[in-house]
Amino acid sequence: MKIVEMRVHSIAIADPPLRSSYGLHAPYALRTILELKSEDGVTGISETHGGEAIAAGFEALRLRIVGRDAYRLAGELMPMIEGKPEGSSLDRSQTYQVPGENPLDASLRLYSAIEIACVDLIGKSVGKPACDILGGRVRDEVLFSAYLFYKHAGGGGVGADARGDEYGEGLTPEAMVKQAEQMIAKYGFRDIKLKAGVLDPEIEIETVRQLRAKFGAGVPLRIDPNCAWSVETSVHVGQSLAKELNGSGYLEDPAAGMDGMAQTREKLLAAGIRTPLASNVAVTSFADIPEAVRIGAVQIVLSDPHYWGGLQQMQHLGKVCRTFGLGLSMHSNTHLGVSLMAMTHAAAATPHLTFACDTHYPWQSEKDEVVAGGRVPIVDGCVRIPEKPGLGVELDYDQLARGRERYAKYPYRKRDDEAEMRKHVDPNWKRILSRW
Amino acid sequence: MKIVEMRVHSIAIADPPLRSSYGLHAPYALRTILELKSEDGVTGISETHGGEAIAAGFEALRLRIVGRDAYRLAGELMPMIEGKPEGSSLDRSQTYQVPGENPLDASLRLYSAIEIACVDLIGKSVGKPACDILGGRVRDEVLFSAYLFYKHAGGGGVGADARGDEYGEGLTPEAMVKQAEQMIAKYGFRDIKLKAGVLDPEIEIETVRQLRAKFGAGVPLRIDPNCAWSVETSVHVGQSLAKELNGSGYLEDPAAGMDGMAQTREKLLAAGIRTPLASNVAVTSFADIPEAVRIGAVQIVLSDPHYWGGLQQMQHLGKVCRTFGLGLSMHSNTHLGVSLMAMTHAAAATPHLTFACDTHYPWQSEKDEVVAGGRVPIVDGCVRIPEKPGLGVELDYDQLARGRERYAKYPYRKRDDEAEMRKHVDPNWKRILSRW
Repeated sequence: MKIVEMRVHSIAIADPPLRSSYGLHAPYALRTILELKSEDGVTGISETHGGEAIAAGFEALRLRIVGRDAYRLAGELMPMIEGKPEGSSLDRSQTYQVPGENPLDASLRLYSAIEIACVDLIGKSVGKPACDILGGRVRDEVLFSAYLFYKHAGGGGVGADARGDEYGEGLTPEAMVKQAEQMIAKYGFRDIKLKAGVLDPEIEIETVRQLRAKFGAGVPLRIDPNCAWSVETSVHVGQSLAKELNGSGYLEDPAAGMDGMAQTREKLLAAGIRTPLASNVAVTSFADIPEAVRIGAVQIVLSDPHYWGGLQQMQHLGKVCRTFGLGLSMHSNTHLGVSLMAMTHAAAATPHLTFACDTHYPWQSEKDEVVAGGRVPIVDGCVRIPEKPGLGVELDYDQLARGRERYAKYPYRKRDDEAEMRKHVDPNWKRILSRW
Repeated sequence: MKIVEMRVHSIAIADPPLRSSYGLHAPYALRTILELKSEDGVTGISETHGGEAIAAGFEALRLRIVGRDAYRLAGELMPMIEGKPEGSSLDRSQTYQVPGENPLDASLRLYSAIEIACVDLIGKSVGKPACDILGGRVRDEVLFSAYLFYKHAGGGGVGADARGDEYGEGLTPEAMVKQAEQMIAKYGFRDIKLKAGVLDPEIEIETVRQLRAKFGAGVPLRIDPNCAWSVETSVHVGQSLAKELNGSGYLEDPAAGMDGMAQTREKLLAAGIRTPLASNVAVTSFADIPEAVRIGAVQIVLSDPHYWGGLQQMQHLGKVCRTFGLGLSMHSNTHLGVSLMAMTHAAAATPHLTFACDTHYPWQSEKDEVVAGGRVPIVDGCVRIPEKPGLGVELDYDQLARGRERYAKYPYRKRDDEAEMRKHVDPNWKRILSRW
């Protein structure tokens, strides 16, 4: 099934002023929509990180994509991801660069989007869902987690193009409980993740405690400061939240670096606290796993089909984790419905998935969705595998054109949360690890 | 694509009197051919171990197979292979039971054959080779190794049904060099494996030395006594053959058990000998890998799509090995062309394959082949991925019927190499580990 056309759409989508240890989300987040069209007129799609660099990356690959067989392209491009590991683990990690902006995993991100579009294309061509193309689903629906963010007032976008502020300002424990109530009422989530590393750790600890008080022990909780804490603070938080996180939740990337994670784990264990540590920062590629296992730095790997190599590599990762006794969950970036479906199919085709997946999806607006028919439904916290073939979604080309227009109109060309902090919150702000 | 029919063919195929540490091959080896037919009349096939137990295993699964979608069956049956690991590593291993006869991996072997038949069915349905169904090939041809066996005179089969003795008796170093010359002349192999653990280790060492003298350093050599040696003997052989095996060859399963392997490795390293140890005995499942890595027992895993879980699990295994710095090669049992093609497609779709694969194929006869059009060609040591869809082979139903007739006519119902030794060589023979 020859690919006769490749289209790359750089789009901008409104994004609320969400906070993390990386800084502040800009009013527009950037995404790329990739289309691969076959000679028989079927189009496979995928969505990935946005901005200039990745779009240029696809262009550079055009001659290796157009004219090739969709069934064989992922195999032909395998050297892009099975080449020599580049740089040290720390260089590859997301410790110092926000996900999607590390040049060292650029080829992995390009490959991932191409592989996903090929699987979508094959699925649409044979009339089967993507998860059944790669070995067959092990579940019909995938559980996602409520993803709470400390945030400033505002719903994203600027001026007349601004979106409504559905959740309002969230900078106190009480506001975060309200945010969770609202999100759970709307989507039925059964797990809660708090993006932390933003306020004083005591406030963040109190936020988790209030969430537990509100939702009870039946709702697993996780907290993720993106390495904002020292080992000592990480241990302090782990100890303070032993009851709230242990059992069904986890502590995600508390401290920077593989060593920081390992030291945190060791000290927590010494204090009798078995809360597992999850990571999408210290461990971002297969090459990081042996060291993480050897020194006990990470107990749960946060996969992401966008930069682990697509759907099939996600399945491989599941097997690696199962083999070495690691848990598996899924990381998320700001995304639309195409990515949500790729994440859902990846999760549906990965037997060893041991936690609800993350998703930023509640933070995006219907107005920015590029999926035909509107936003993908999340019901009871789950996305169901649709009866439709491939990823189960098609593009709304009018909406896509609007996304491209926003991209052209606004100056954002890469993600820079630190610059946004300086612009809107504190002119002297710098990301500091560890801040607390 | 609904499966509407399952057919299970137990067949017997002539097998020469090959020797190993397990004993002696019977005049007939047993195989099972599985057919899964879809509602649109396409038939997917696979080949696996033979005898009563596995045929009964397929029958027990009939209701879980017939009526199901070929795209989803492997996912639905995943609990068969991702259930709780059963028994200890030693129980699961092939240390004390010949491959194909361990009840603890029965469900894995059944699953594997079903998965392969489904991939063949899907490939045939969409007109694509099996290796391109599961993510896309990374090579168009797969290199196999000449597999030398010490053997008695005879070509397999009995009485009027006996096959010609192509290679003659092989019980001396000189005869083995001749066997290798003959096999290489016919198939163009570029690697040589010697099945050992049969004669005094000094004779086997001499055999390897004569092979090296004959074929030179450009032909990688490997030797496999199936655990017949003590750690001391293993180290002695490793030291004696340091020049012959190191670099491009390996020492396969010299000593019994994960500990025996680890001790052998440690002592060899202490003696400055870096010849890697390969295994299809100590490591036969994903569950064995962490310990093998931890104690350094195995440097090369010998995969086998027949009992590692089929084509997709082979790909997973490749990634696990790549991630943890292990090499990957492939184990073989007595087999026909359907298995050879499954092995070839598995290898073609597994990027991290670091050695030529094993195959018993030269030991079987055209007269027993069930593949339409006759035996699969091996040229320059390689099997090429055919242009045809699925595994690239169809069944010759007349030949299949002859295989069933032989199965009905002769009394063999499971592999028992020890019984054959007692019958034909030594009435008191018992497998002893370690024998030397």
